[in-house]
Amino acid sequence: MTALNNHLTIDGFAMEFDSTSREFVRRPVKSLPLESGELLIRVTLCTICGSDLHTFQGRRSAPAGCVLGHEIIGEVVAWEGNELPRDYHGHVLQPGQRVTWAMAVGCGECFFCRHNLTQKCERLFKYGHQVRRDGGPSGGLSPFCVLVPGTPVFPIPDCLPDEVACPANCATATVFAAIRLIAETHALAGATVLITGAGMLGLTAAAQLSDAGAEHIVVADPDAERLQTARSFGATHGISAADPAGLKEVLGQLSQGRGADIALDFAGVPAAVQTCIDAVRVGGCVLLAGSVFPTDALALAPENIVRRMLTVRGLHNYQADDLAQGLRFLERTQGRFPFEQLVARTFPLEQTQQAFEYAGQQRPVRLAVRP
Amino acid sequence: MTALNNHLTIDGFAMEFDSTSREFVRRPVKSLPLESGELLIRVTLCTICGSDLHTFQGRRSAPAGCVLGHEIIGEVVAWEGNELPRDYHGHVLQPGQRVTWAMAVGCGECFFCRHNLTQKCERLFKYGHQVRRDGGPSGGLSPFCVLVPGTPVFPIPDCLPDEVACPANCATATVFAAIRLIAETHALAGATVLITGAGMLGLTAAAQLSDAGAEHIVVADPDAERLQTARSFGATHGISAADPAGLKEVLGQLSQGRGADIALDFAGVPAAVQTCIDAVRVGGCVLLAGSVFPTDALALAPENIVRRMLTVRGLHNYQADDLAQGLRFLERTQGRFPFEQLVARTFPLEQTQQAFEYAGQQRPVRLAVRP
Repeated sequence: MTALNNHLTIDGFAMEFDSTSREFVRRPVKSLPLESGELLIRVTLCTICGSDLHTFQGRRSAPAGCVLGHEIIGEVVAWEGNELPRDYHGHVLQPGQRVTWAMAVGCGECFFCRHNLTQKCERLFKYGHQVRRDGGPSGGLSPFCVLVPGTPVFPIPDCLPDEVACPANCATATVFAAIRLIAETHALAGATVLITGAGMLGLTAAAQLSDAGAEHIVVADPDAERLQTARSFGATHGISAADPAGLKEVLGQLSQGRGADIALDFAGVPAAVQTCIDAVRVGGCVLLAGSVFPTDALALAPENIVRRMLTVRGLHNYQADDLAQGLRFLERTQGRFPFEQLVARTFPLEQTQQAFEYAGQQRPVRLAVRP
Repeated sequence: MTALNNHLTIDGFAMEFDSTSREFVRRPVKSLPLESGELLIRVTLCTICGSDLHTFQGRRSAPAGCVLGHEIIGEVVAWEGNELPRDYHGHVLQPGQRVTWAMAVGCGECFFCRHNLTQKCERLFKYGHQVRRDGGPSGGLSPFCVLVPGTPVFPIPDCLPDEVACPANCATATVFAAIRLIAETHALAGATVLITGAGMLGLTAAAQLSDAGAEHIVVADPDAERLQTARSFGATHGISAADPAGLKEVLGQLSQGRGADIALDFAGVPAAVQTCIDAVRVGGCVLLAGSVFPTDALALAPENIVRRMLTVRGLHNYQADDLAQGLRFLERTQGRFPFEQLVARTFPLEQTQQAFEYAGQQRPVRLAVRP
């Protein structure tokens, strides 16, 4: 365990986001001596999430000095503390071990942490969204990441390539949380499901719902290529988001005219949310997870919710256990869904700006940046 | 069991609602020989529900020839069938027995009946809302009611006065269903709850939530007298619906600034629904049951649902078991809540018109009509 000591440091440069110029700028960084409970990770891959793109495009704000990137994997380097560092499952972490971690860390004590809403902790720490107290980088566009005390850390199964494991701590875990919420009130097995948005989250949802036994998985997206991709992730039907009549017809055929049992929105635009609300049957469930940026409001008739007995739930981020389950899902279903194909390109860290511009223009499902 | 034979008939007059003139007109009625599975009930009391009032006031439509009134109790008179009639619990019904029954009867076989949504059955029969196939009355503003085959029938505990038992098959059971839905995802014990609308449903909800262990029960209504009444039904706080700032302050004080854990709307107007959505904390639950008539739409930002991780559910009517539980609740908590005081006056059947006019003008929580 000699490597797990706090004398090791990592230096290099991080790519800091300047929200005024909307440019990534190189900033020299060096890990400081660790404090008790901290874990030093050498970042090995960071994938660019839709939220990162929203920030880059000015639809979300980021604090000054922020290093973006929260879909991260890395290797355990050093540790400070009286006891050996342990993963979420209680096993001792080894130097060089490949890990990921919960992007949102709660205090474990406040009202929200005690009510399974860690991601809404009153003293939340969120990787890739804020600046550490010491001014250091908290995001993945950096050669290292120092994990704050209490961060749930997860070993990555050997069978998962870096590109498959990297989005796990955002997309995979969030989708697991979404499906967990739905399953509290609605049966997944045999269900007819609509998914709006065939990006990383929508494709992951199709795969997880397929694995959970959903019978019909209808995916709607404006992009024909993504609809084609959705087929290999468990979607039984792909419909252009620009064809609501076609969508209604397909759902009607699949459900004897009733509509979908469950609809999940990952697109976030009001039209997609409205599509979900309109598409579900009496007694159906609508799970909203895409609307993490300001949009126009929907016009919603309360009588529509009441008489149709709808369940509408919003989800933002996830609990640590959702990440554990998400990683298990990826390991268990390996080979069934081509997650390894979703990262279209990997850029070196110094080309972060090009990576974000490429992502905005070409709209691949994911790009990766390797420090 | 001699009384339980199909040779007995009841005649008299029912009060039929003419939706054009908005008047109740006397119609001579006589029960026809029963068909297999039918049960003849002598109606002993009918309370006027808010939905009946909405119909009377033209905010809901009713088919021609409809006899309103679905909060009904009565006595078992006659039966036709090869086997003895049984109640919901499997016990044989006795002549003269005081009973109530589920206002909505499902076929038991369609998709909705198989998915705990009997009230949305594809072949639904709904007392007091439609005309029987033989043209006879299905509502309680009549000397008799013939129960269709498959109607879940419930004996009324001896300890419950007619006036307490009569609203059970609408208000009490619907509130039980509402709380059952909430409890699927949110804890009631210790919760801070907002109820908008202190009519029969809101008062019943306060009582049931108090019984279920909710810690703070805040009731909002425009009517100061109803807020006073709410106190004796378990409400810990009453706030004028015209004082949203005061409501926010009270909820903030009770929840360390977070907001209500749970909000239930029984008022149905958009402002009340909006109040509920605004009042709940991050991760809170909003149960909508009041909006059973057309209103303006709400403007709802999807991001608000997602980031606040809200659960919004609509409820309309109930399942048979909710009525069983509702009656048990009334029996078990007898003496704790003054349900017997909620029926302000009882009118004879021929004064139905006066009863509805009185209800519209004086807005008592309930009025009763006794055939």
